[in-house]
Amino acid sequence: MKAVYLEETKRIAVKDVPKPVPGKGEVLVKVDACGICGSDVHYWQHGKIGDFVVREPMILGHEAAGTVAAVGEGADSVKVGDIVALEPGITCMKCDKCRNGLYNLCSEVRFFATPPVDGVMKEFVVHPAELVHPVPAGLSAQVASLAEPFSVGVHALRLAKFEAGQKALVLGAGIIGICVMLAAFEAGASEVAITDIQDLRLERAKALGADEIINSKNAGPKHQYYDAVFECTGVQECAASAIKAARSGGNVVMIGMGPDDMTRIPLLDAVCREVSVHGSFRYRNTYPVALDIIAKHKDLFSKLITHNFTADEAEKAFMTALQDPSACKVMVNL
Amino acid sequence: MKAVYLEETKRIAVKDVPKPVPGKGEVLVKVDACGICGSDVHYWQHGKIGDFVVREPMILGHEAAGTVAAVGEGADSVKVGDIVALEPGITCMKCDKCRNGLYNLCSEVRFFATPPVDGVMKEFVVHPAELVHPVPAGLSAQVASLAEPFSVGVHALRLAKFEAGQKALVLGAGIIGICVMLAAFEAGASEVAITDIQDLRLERAKALGADEIINSKNAGPKHQYYDAVFECTGVQECAASAIKAARSGGNVVMIGMGPDDMTRIPLLDAVCREVSVHGSFRYRNTYPVALDIIAKHKDLFSKLITHNFTADEAEKAFMTALQDPSACKVMVNL
Amino acid sequence: MKAVYLEETKRIAVKDVPKPVPGKGEVLVKVDACGICGSDVHYWQHGKIGDFVVREPMILGHEAAGTVAAVGEGADSVKVGDIVALEPGITCMKCDKCRNGLYNLCSEVRFFATPPVDGVMKEFVVHPAELVHPVPAGLSAQVASLAEPFSVGVHALRLAKFEAGQKALVLGAGIIGICVMLAAFEAGASEVAITDIQDLRLERAKALGADEIINSKNAGPKHQYYDAVFECTGVQECAASAIKAARSGGNVVMIGMGPDDMTRIPLLDAVCREVSVHGSFRYRNTYPVALDIIAKHKDLFSKLITHNFTADEAEKAFMTALQDPSACKVMVNL
Amino acid sequence: MKAVYLEETKRIAVKDVPKPVPGKGEVLVKVDACGICGSDVHYWQHGKIGDFVVREPMILGHEAAGTVAAVGEGADSVKVGDIVALEPGITCMKCDKCRNGLYNLCSEVRFFATPPVDGVMKEFVVHPAELVHPVPAGLSAQVASLAEPFSVGVHALRLAKFEAGQKALVLGAGIIGICVMLAAFEAGASEVAITDIQDLRLERAKALGADEIINSKNAGPKHQYYDAVFECTGVQECAASAIKAARSGGNVVMIGMGPDDMTRIPLLDAVCREVSVHGSFRYRNTYPVALDIIAKHKDLFSKLITHNFTADEAEKAFMTALQDPSACKVMVNL
Repeated sequence: MKAVYLEETKRIAVKDVPKPVPGKGEVLVKVDACGICGSDVHYWQHGKIGDFVVREPMILGHEAAGTVAAVGEGADSVKVGDIVALEPGITCMKCDKCRNGLYNLCSEVRFFATPPVDGVMKEFVVHPAELVHPVPAGLSAQVASLAEPFSVGVHALRLAKFEAGQKALVLGAGIIGICVMLAAFEAGASEVAITDIQDLRLERAKALGADEIINSKNAGPKHQYYDAVFECTGVQECAASAIKAARSGGNVVMIGMGPDDMTRIPLLDAVCREVSVHGSFRYRNTYPVALDIIAKHKDLFSKLITHNFTADEAEKAFMTALQDPSACKVMVNL
Repeated sequence: MKAVYLEETKRIAVKDVPKPVPGKGEVLVKVDACGICGSDVHYWQHGKIGDFVVREPMILGHEAAGTVAAVGEGADSVKVGDIVALEPGITCMKCDKCRNGLYNLCSEVRFFATPPVDGVMKEFVVHPAELVHPVPAGLSAQVASLAEPFSVGVHALRLAKFEAGQKALVLGAGIIGICVMLAAFEAGASEVAITDIQDLRLERAKALGADEIINSKNAGPKHQYYDAVFECTGVQECAASAIKAARSGGNVVMIGMGPDDMTRIPLLDAVCREVSVHGSFRYRNTYPVALDIIAKHKDLFSKLITHNFTADEAEKAFMTALQDPSACKVMVNL
Repeated sequence: MKAVYLEETKRIAVKDVPKPVPGKGEVLVKVDACGICGSDVHYWQHGKIGDFVVREPMILGHEAAGTVAAVGEGADSVKVGDIVALEPGITCMKCDKCRNGLYNLCSEVRFFATPPVDGVMKEFVVHPAELVHPVPAGLSAQVASLAEPFSVGVHALRLAKFEAGQKALVLGAGIIGICVMLAAFEAGASEVAITDIQDLRLERAKALGADEIINSKNAGPKHQYYDAVFECTGVQECAASAIKAARSGGNVVMIGMGPDDMTRIPLLDAVCREVSVHGSFRYRNTYPVALDIIAKHKDLFSKLITHNFTADEAEKAFMTALQDPSACKVMVNL
Repeated sequence: MKAVYLEETKRIAVKDVPKPVPGKGEVLVKVDACGICGSDVHYWQHGKIGDFVVREPMILGHEAAGTVAAVGEGADSVKVGDIVALEPGITCMKCDKCRNGLYNLCSEVRFFATPPVDGVMKEFVVHPAELVHPVPAGLSAQVASLAEPFSVGVHALRLAKFEAGQKALVLGAGIIGICVMLAAFEAGASEVAITDIQDLRLERAKALGADEIINSKNAGPKHQYYDAVFECTGVQECAASAIKAARSGGNVVMIGMGPDDMTRIPLLDAVCREVSVHGSFRYRNTYPVALDIIAKHKDLFSKLITHNFTADEAEKAFMTALQDPSACKVMVNL
């Protein structure tokens, strides 16, 4: 079967590898679609993210959905032919974090396409049954693969303790910012403003329903106004802006990954107005909910997929994700 | 009656002013003791804190307790002779914050000794009945006046959603740090470590029960270890240290007031380990609880009062609070 | 000006009373519309609800909206001509409940049309400014008056800690059940089932968007399935059914008022599956949010108003609310 | 090795069984002490609890602690010679409940001495490493075995969202009621009242620190007063009393297991005063915290162990637990 490898920094190769066999409690899935994430592009371009260094060829991709091809012993939650989305992180389920339900903080996690763990941009994959989520009727594997980035949004909204009728600000109109915005709509936001520095992205956000778009080159968001602010850029000015934009007693969720340390962070403002700033990392227990929401609004979510490629075109797909300003989600279909 | 005025920057004057009369729903209290807070000292030395500028002579002090001298119409929650502690902030109770129970965030608040509002370092004060809290039997007004700084601790522990058996780190062993530590003990902390740069303060913290004392000049706290971290210094290095010291998924409460902006804040660490950072400002709905806890441990709390002065000695009292390294809480007895 | 009085049990009279004058912090509102609530009908028919007995003629109605006619000193949050909705309960804002933000539990509350407090089914009313909520542009007073029953739904959803993507069950398809259902939609429910014993009501619920309708005469809801269950009938069998229908670890919100004591309540099931049962009484801090949501879906909410009458037709209006099975919300226009 | 069997209803037998061998991720523990729980006594007397029927001889006991005798591959969290307490329930860690951290609600749980799963009243047991909790230095296995019933208290306090300075009422002064009381002390309760119908139990509660003891034969607890109420009897009158005793907006935690259905439950009172009633089942993520608290107060906790027996005296131990009114915790030492 084919697999899309990061052979070395800046070099992608499609290689032939043996098809795996499911063991006890595992499911064999024919991967139908795998989206390209910013982290995939970053590994491709730089060979590492922080302490995670790609030292050997690694299969890319962690946003996948497909069709059940075979089930191992005891894996009876799905059956052959079911369309399923794959939750990427295999956690120990024994540590304090896992037993407390915070499995996204498990330090033993093996997460697709995070070195040295292979990703899922390949024709078949074997995965634990509890991470293979059945997709609601009528939803394609391709659109279902968006459950991965959309899970980031669902999780962030939970951390913000968001309630219907509240106002949200999203900093950054890339795929994550868009997913957070759609999660805020679904949670009943009365108003969602979104910022970016690219008008093309802001216009797409507007078309998808943003109540207000703000090009941060020209203007900043309202101060002390939003019940919840979601920082999706990792840019220091945005982190500072996020705190100032939150209402007194409001919540800021930090999702974007920036430099190790940040300067000009207005913590005094957070103290005096009791703003809470929550770090948000990946997601936990989101897949069934994310898939239900995507299915309910599948036409809307379909619009996030702007480009499609085959496995053999993987390099072109990555180049598009890197360079094409019109790209939102670039999909590799296997 | 006597009142202790900040006449102008660096000049304290004891002056004679008319005794007030309680109106409807108000209580007249003979103030027996009023502690000196760091903010009082700061106004005295600098004439302002941030945007709060002392433009006219202002009575100092906001940590007061005393004895009911008279009650206005309808103020039947206390009676003449009761020992009471005075909650300092009069809030509008009409705005969105007040109606949500977040009255400490009311922008209309009139808070003792915050310009242009007079403080309570004077023989008599008239105050709304609902802010005049009866003191449990056997507790003196002097010790009861600690309900003000201790309320900061009680509030911070609530923001941290602290549970019995958790581990706490307190940064700063001044009166606020000590109050947070005592609140953590009462909430069932299994371990409380406290840091400072003065050994004298650390030794006092040790004598009051700290499990571990750390002089930050020599060493830092454990990383990724504490369920809750309380930053009580306003120093940027401490704010950074606070985030790193919290366990994944843990809570940091920022209480100390530092510069408007801070640098070298490790927000990426907060993102990747889902640390929540909560701004904490004064307190709300803490007085009855704070007084009960103080009464339960009155011998322990008494030790926080290291120096006593009369109103006529007010300047000396302020000087002690400013300069004497052995001072924890300096009390002015009226 | 005209006022609709409950003259004595079963007798309604429209009388002429003096027009009031707004004092400091108060607003004079020309009431345009006032919905009839089940409690109004109950007072009319029985002269009391529990310990609340109508001993003198009382003006009925508490679901009102109108137009600002004059403002008292300091009441500058609205201006003459604004369309506003009236939050009915005037609370003390001094007790422990009010200061904690739980003002709906204030024992000193003066609530429209709860004896001996007059209601608002009259041409003009004076009300505290903070309870006079401006209505979003484009929303009529009549539809805005639904903010009162809809607030019950918004509050109940908050008590259930409801999150987007969860499944809800509503027991009872009267106006309150319908309002809870609409609040659940807005909060992102992936599935809402609703029960009743009248097909007419169930069909209306279906037309308004219910995913599943259940006539309890024929069938019960799924067991151990719903994330949140909302009991809006006060009927004992429904209370029991509510607990059984909640998933393990789920939330039941009890809104309906039934007999003092209930029998056959399966508390053991709640213990073994850790179901939480929350009493829900009226609402707090809901009006701005409720009005925003109503404005967003004003066509949908308009459908709840099935009958319209003038003040002079008040008796006919009450008779319709009591007897006409097709009535959802009956409106008296003043 | 010896094992204490429930041979058939009312017949206990000490039998010789093979010593087990630890597999991968497992630990072999020499059980030193195993407390007798009310459920053990109930199985002995009645052969079943609800749907759990003892159909074949079953080893009793689930409150055990001991010494590590051997460790399987990868079980490196403990080492031979460590004193450890055993968390009794082995859960699937794959279902929705387990992955959400609610593993005590896992329907696949295998819990010691819950038919058909054998208990741990035997000389050696093999157990998954993550359920084998090291005991703080200086704490004996015997006292550490109390971590099981005390975990029920720690969990219940969490469900009540209990804060330092709050007031608690505990209904029932058996071992569970006592454990809840001690957990409330540790969480900073300002006042704990406890009820029972046996004076001997109430006196023990008093000696252990109860602020108020109430013999329910003579008097009931205060109405509308306690922040948190813990029902530990399963008796219907106590469940009703629990709701009435909670303050408006307060929390009731139901722990005791009574009949399937209960009558005279004042749900209307819970509705009108927004009391929340939480079912509480066993515990989750409590062991390390429970052990820390027990170690901190080991002299106090030691007093809960009123009777000691050897394995050969098991029948006498059970008879004592059943009949001796002075028994609090009866221990079988292996």
